[in-house]
Amino acid sequence: QGRGGGVIDGVKVPVVRLNLGEIAEATVVAVFPVCSAEDKSKGVEEAPWEYRAKGDFGIVEADKGWKRWVVLPAWGPVMGLKEGGVAVAFSDAKALPWRVNRWYKEESILVVANRGRKEVTEDDGFYLVSSDDELKIERGATLKEKGCTETLGSVAIVVRPPRESNDELSPEDWD
Amino acid sequence: QGRGGGVIDGVKVPVVRLNLGEIAEATVVAVFPVCSAEDKSKGVEEAPWEYRAKGDFGIVEADKGWKRWVVLPAWGPVMGLKEGGVAVAFSDAKALPWRVNRWYKEESILVVANRGRKEVTEDDGFYLVSSDDELKIERGATLKEKGCTETLGSVAIVVRPPRESNDELSPEDWD
Repeated sequence: QGRGGGVIDGVKVPVVRLNLGEIAEATVVAVFPVCSAEDKSKGVEEAPWEYRAKGDFGIVEADKGWKRWVVLPAWGPVMGLKEGGVAVAFSDAKALPWRVNRWYKEESILVVANRGRKEVTEDDGFYLVSSDDELKIERGATLKEKGCTETLGSVAIVVRPPRESNDELSPEDWD
Repeated sequence: QGRGGGVIDGVKVPVVRLNLGEIAEATVVAVFPVCSAEDKSKGVEEAPWEYRAKGDFGIVEADKGWKRWVVLPAWGPVMGLKEGGVAVAFSDAKALPWRVNRWYKEESILVVANRGRKEVTEDDGFYLVSSDDELKIERGATLKEKGCTETLGSVAIVVRPPRESNDELSPEDWD
């Protein structure tokens, strides 16, 4: 799970870097509906709830039509999400509550959240919330301090883009 | 391309068997909108035209919402289909115009068609047509004889289900 990525110390959410060809090394893949962070909580709430792969060909059947989908390798935290999962595409990593270096911050990230687990239960868990009309990731402990008990969903995994796919990276990203 | 499958003699459409874990061996995968053969030509025509994988995460962005999608390995004929492709799910292989053995006939198949190539050009090409209100695959030569010049699309590949996934096969399928 999470080759090329890693778990940040004390952080209970896997942060992985998608390797080109990794979708590959898995026997199975997971398909999730995607919404943009710009669509805010509305996007998260509207994305299909069901998207199970069925039958011989693993055809994904959603409970409603949806335009954007992503295929992820069969990482553990992702495969556990049989329904209610959604991938939120952030254009940069500023939404993360932990310190990241500059170019990590400038990378796009994909946050897979479990809408079936909205309640803040774990202090060291991470949750997707709408704060000041922006989607953000917050620690359970921080939310509890603020008296926030319900979120948009718990964070299952944070995916960083492949390192080699540099078509869309400008030279200064490689400082 | 098409490991575990094969090209039938004289037939210009690859027929492949999907191997479990094959999605795997590919560096890239292809995602197609799926319609059921039961939805007839309406399903084929209504499926999204665009479904290109974009950006760092290869997020598929369709030009309209759609409920059913399938992930296929990066087989050549499939990767060439940048837009206009659609996967039609048939519950058995009776729609194919060539002779198949009994249990092949009882297998479900997935036919990936190119809606961007509707015109009957190749005698030995295969085309998706609606005949007697049923979706079928026909040879170019047969269609030309009938005077049919336009189809729903040319057939890019025929996919047979994985052999090992026998959950949905009854014992007699293994005669």
